[in-house]
Amino acid sequence: MNYQEILDEIAQDIRPLLSEGKVADYIPALAEVKKEQFAMTLTLFDGTQISTGCSEKLFSIQSISKVFTFTQALKYYGVELYKRIGREPSGNPFNSLVQLEYEHGKPRNPFINAGAINVTDALISSAGERAYENLLTFIQSIANDKTITSDNRVATSEMQHGYRNLALANLMKSFDNLHNDTDEVVKTYFKHCAIEMNTQMLSRSMLYLANYGRDPLSNQEYISKEQAKRINAVMLTCGHYDASGDFAYRVGLPGKSGVGGGIVAVVPKQMGICVWSPGLNAQGNSLVGTKALELFTTRTGLSIF
Amino acid sequence: MNYQEILDEIAQDIRPLLSEGKVADYIPALAEVKKEQFAMTLTLFDGTQISTGCSEKLFSIQSISKVFTFTQALKYYGVELYKRIGREPSGNPFNSLVQLEYEHGKPRNPFINAGAINVTDALISSAGERAYENLLTFIQSIANDKTITSDNRVATSEMQHGYRNLALANLMKSFDNLHNDTDEVVKTYFKHCAIEMNTQMLSRSMLYLANYGRDPLSNQEYISKEQAKRINAVMLTCGHYDASGDFAYRVGLPGKSGVGGGIVAVVPKQMGICVWSPGLNAQGNSLVGTKALELFTTRTGLSIF
Amino acid sequence: MNYQEILDEIAQDIRPLLSEGKVADYIPALAEVKKEQFAMTLTLFDGTQISTGCSEKLFSIQSISKVFTFTQALKYYGVELYKRIGREPSGNPFNSLVQLEYEHGKPRNPFINAGAINVTDALISSAGERAYENLLTFIQSIANDKTITSDNRVATSEMQHGYRNLALANLMKSFDNLHNDTDEVVKTYFKHCAIEMNTQMLSRSMLYLANYGRDPLSNQEYISKEQAKRINAVMLTCGHYDASGDFAYRVGLPGKSGVGGGIVAVVPKQMGICVWSPGLNAQGNSLVGTKALELFTTRTGLSIF
Amino acid sequence: MNYQEILDEIAQDIRPLLSEGKVADYIPALAEVKKEQFAMTLTLFDGTQISTGCSEKLFSIQSISKVFTFTQALKYYGVELYKRIGREPSGNPFNSLVQLEYEHGKPRNPFINAGAINVTDALISSAGERAYENLLTFIQSIANDKTITSDNRVATSEMQHGYRNLALANLMKSFDNLHNDTDEVVKTYFKHCAIEMNTQMLSRSMLYLANYGRDPLSNQEYISKEQAKRINAVMLTCGHYDASGDFAYRVGLPGKSGVGGGIVAVVPKQMGICVWSPGLNAQGNSLVGTKALELFTTRTGLSIF
Repeated sequence: MNYQEILDEIAQDIRPLLSEGKVADYIPALAEVKKEQFAMTLTLFDGTQISTGCSEKLFSIQSISKVFTFTQALKYYGVELYKRIGREPSGNPFNSLVQLEYEHGKPRNPFINAGAINVTDALISSAGERAYENLLTFIQSIANDKTITSDNRVATSEMQHGYRNLALANLMKSFDNLHNDTDEVVKTYFKHCAIEMNTQMLSRSMLYLANYGRDPLSNQEYISKEQAKRINAVMLTCGHYDASGDFAYRVGLPGKSGVGGGIVAVVPKQMGICVWSPGLNAQGNSLVGTKALELFTTRTGLSIF
Repeated sequence: MNYQEILDEIAQDIRPLLSEGKVADYIPALAEVKKEQFAMTLTLFDGTQISTGCSEKLFSIQSISKVFTFTQALKYYGVELYKRIGREPSGNPFNSLVQLEYEHGKPRNPFINAGAINVTDALISSAGERAYENLLTFIQSIANDKTITSDNRVATSEMQHGYRNLALANLMKSFDNLHNDTDEVVKTYFKHCAIEMNTQMLSRSMLYLANYGRDPLSNQEYISKEQAKRINAVMLTCGHYDASGDFAYRVGLPGKSGVGGGIVAVVPKQMGICVWSPGLNAQGNSLVGTKALELFTTRTGLSIF
Repeated sequence: MNYQEILDEIAQDIRPLLSEGKVADYIPALAEVKKEQFAMTLTLFDGTQISTGCSEKLFSIQSISKVFTFTQALKYYGVELYKRIGREPSGNPFNSLVQLEYEHGKPRNPFINAGAINVTDALISSAGERAYENLLTFIQSIANDKTITSDNRVATSEMQHGYRNLALANLMKSFDNLHNDTDEVVKTYFKHCAIEMNTQMLSRSMLYLANYGRDPLSNQEYISKEQAKRINAVMLTCGHYDASGDFAYRVGLPGKSGVGGGIVAVVPKQMGICVWSPGLNAQGNSLVGTKALELFTTRTGLSIF
Repeated sequence: MNYQEILDEIAQDIRPLLSEGKVADYIPALAEVKKEQFAMTLTLFDGTQISTGCSEKLFSIQSISKVFTFTQALKYYGVELYKRIGREPSGNPFNSLVQLEYEHGKPRNPFINAGAINVTDALISSAGERAYENLLTFIQSIANDKTITSDNRVATSEMQHGYRNLALANLMKSFDNLHNDTDEVVKTYFKHCAIEMNTQMLSRSMLYLANYGRDPLSNQEYISKEQAKRINAVMLTCGHYDASGDFAYRVGLPGKSGVGGGIVAVVPKQMGICVWSPGLNAQGNSLVGTKALELFTTRTGLSIF
């Protein structure tokens, strides 16, 4: 299959949509990003990368970081992790406290905000103040790029408006399901979200999930086959807030979006994908990114359905 | 692959689990079913059937009927159907009124009870009193068996204890999202649930979903490719009540369970599957059935992950 | 105190407000009532009645009937009644199912719809098909008027749009907290609501609550002192849907409103009051009626605060 | 009426109940208080005090402080205060986040925790860091005792376990309905709760509410007549968490309880009352205190019903 041709066609086809959608504006540092941008990269198991658009342009990975923190916590805690966090779709807006209260402080899954904050707390419990560095090292390793870092301006900007997340953290702590200082946990969580990557790095970073937990290039096993399967399943059922079912239908691949406009996706046994375009749809997922992935699986027949 | 051997091994492996689980006891007619029963059938695109266990034994399909009613309604209404019903996971027990009230009488998806009752109402609106006959004819056609019928004893028994479902129906009607007599709608819904089939019939009936909406044997197109994709996606994200995420992980196939102990599953482009064992796990899905499917995809590598 | 003068002044003062408010329009038969009407009557312990406005004009008592059904059920069941119904404010719109589901089918108090339907069920359990006649006889007795009856047109009209109430009844039945046929219960409930009275009759009917359960004129004891106290307390804390706190502040008397525009109130040890004006405020209580009662307690110093 | 005799009889009658109830144990510093203690004081308009039990023993006023902060905020902001806080019963446990989220960060009333935290924020906005001193000065004035102060050990102890309250504060802030630093607001709120008084001081402090906002002894007007009426109405409908309706019935007086075991009550135009006994009932109100007040209004006929 001529992937370069397919990506270039997609870049052409989505052009009229670039003016639609809405850049995340609740984080001032993100609100300045220009909407009319697009990039897409595939990374194959032999390391070949096929890109279109501004695939070297860095952007804020935001909730895509939840895939990496979940990976780290699952590796460290194993199934013990599920004592403090569930694995089922939530059926509520991504930051709802209602469900968290009725379910006694146990978040539904690691991809809603409460869940990712909880996972961050677990990482701090296991690694102390090295939690962030460990995560960054892991990401640099799977993306094969030592330059990756977090944008402090974005992290600080989020912290100044992160009251909802602090409410979630304090609520979990009141149920004794969070064990470190809430301010520190939320600060670390925002630092993860503020990591900057481009579509080349992110598509590369998905290879371990496409290959049963093992990097096909370095042959390093990051997590077990079972754990990789679990992460893919959670991405498929919970990866896109309240549009996860729709994403499963349109794209048909395990994936995870972030309000920075990025979406990663996994074609099991074949490749990692990342697409980026900052305009969001009503559910908070990249509007053009979702469309591009839909066109991609339709044209390649790579949808799981 | 020697499917017969794999199925027979599975039948052997699940034997110790047959005494676990709990038969659905809120429906008196179902409570009498003996727990220690098991059957599994694969139907390939050429019509070949591979079975193990009591694959000719009829059982109540219960919520598996929701796949068929959703198919019928989608065929008739197309995307118009989504004005009255959503397509996203619900994150609440399958019969919760809370979400329905907060979302103004629009059910989250066609596989929670409110959603299936709503779909039944849509079918009555389009077919009047022929709604049930039409559905039965459709099922007989995709299962290729004219003898299939509903067990009135079960339907009546459910109606006598169906107050929660009547509450759901009346709540939707109060939001003007149900257009026929609530008693009639719920009665028809229970009649669908009380249809009796065996694993041979049910695995055969999944072929149209495994093959883009078209029966691979008769070559008849029941629904469009897009619609088949949608149904598979909804099965994957919402097919197993509050254990849909877990089923996606363990089994990795679009599927739908019923409290009668049956589970259907689809291997896109390859086969239809049905497994039956009446003991249920805490989430209301067949305990042994889930395990058997997990063993099947693990051993065949047919999981989508 | 010259009550006649005070009432006439009030009738004068509220005149500019008569065009405000909104007649209940979800019940067709009520929607036809003209808004610019007003009546108010006090009934003293010696039987003296002081009225202003159209105090002989009959109107639909609607939720005021809940005071009478609660009285009957409390008399029959005593504190046993509280096994199936609470006595605390609800803090939710008057017909919410959410709270009812989370509290397992036990309504918060007898004045929200679920509570009154539950009370009606209790009355049917104790009196069978004579439930409605018994209630009517009781009302005729305390109002001292044998002509009082129910308007079937209104009752039927409500039944045709009573899906929300049927949902409440079925939900309670699913929790085994309702013991008769839901249709019959709701039908009877609507018949109670459709009883027609005027302000003279209704103010007269409050005397037993103003006098420790005993009619000061006939000297008949309808309920115990403790029970009268309880009903007054529930009227004060739950009598006006989601504006009960505001009514307590403005008026400072135990009272109960109905969407027909009537409000009854009790001045312990002194009198019964009824005011009527069909225009409702945003919370569903008579706008002019509330204002008239506020003026009355302010001018007479009869507020409990 | 011989109040001394009545109080002494009550002290006798409640003795068998002193071993029941449960001291608040979520605040370590309160958990140490001995359960078998009781005190009750009436303060008449001429300053006469009638007491029984250990009426000089100081205890933590806890939520009784909400009456004082509400008074201060109402005095400063007038009806503007209601833009940020409601006046209706809540119908949910006193610290629920669910209602707060569904109602967009606006607490139902000033006596649930969210409401009192919100009021504290309003006081900090108007008085800055003098907020606490102002409140203390006000309390010292209405209690006529300059020695009153806060127990820092209790305040600190609460802060260490106050995650639920921090969650409430952050949630309100996320809805832009809280304007100061959440830590500072909650800290100040806990400092209010940790103020120590005895039944003599507290019954004295209720006189301004019993007398239309004006202290009958000093003749100082603290708040307007309308505001006093409002505070009394909110005490009656919302003063006792999820047992407010029951308190209205049993006691029939505006009142406010605290988990320290104190309850204040107001007999309009006659007296202020305070009772203390640290054992709590299931709803978090003083078990013996509630009983003592019930006996008092029954024997004196001072219930409003």
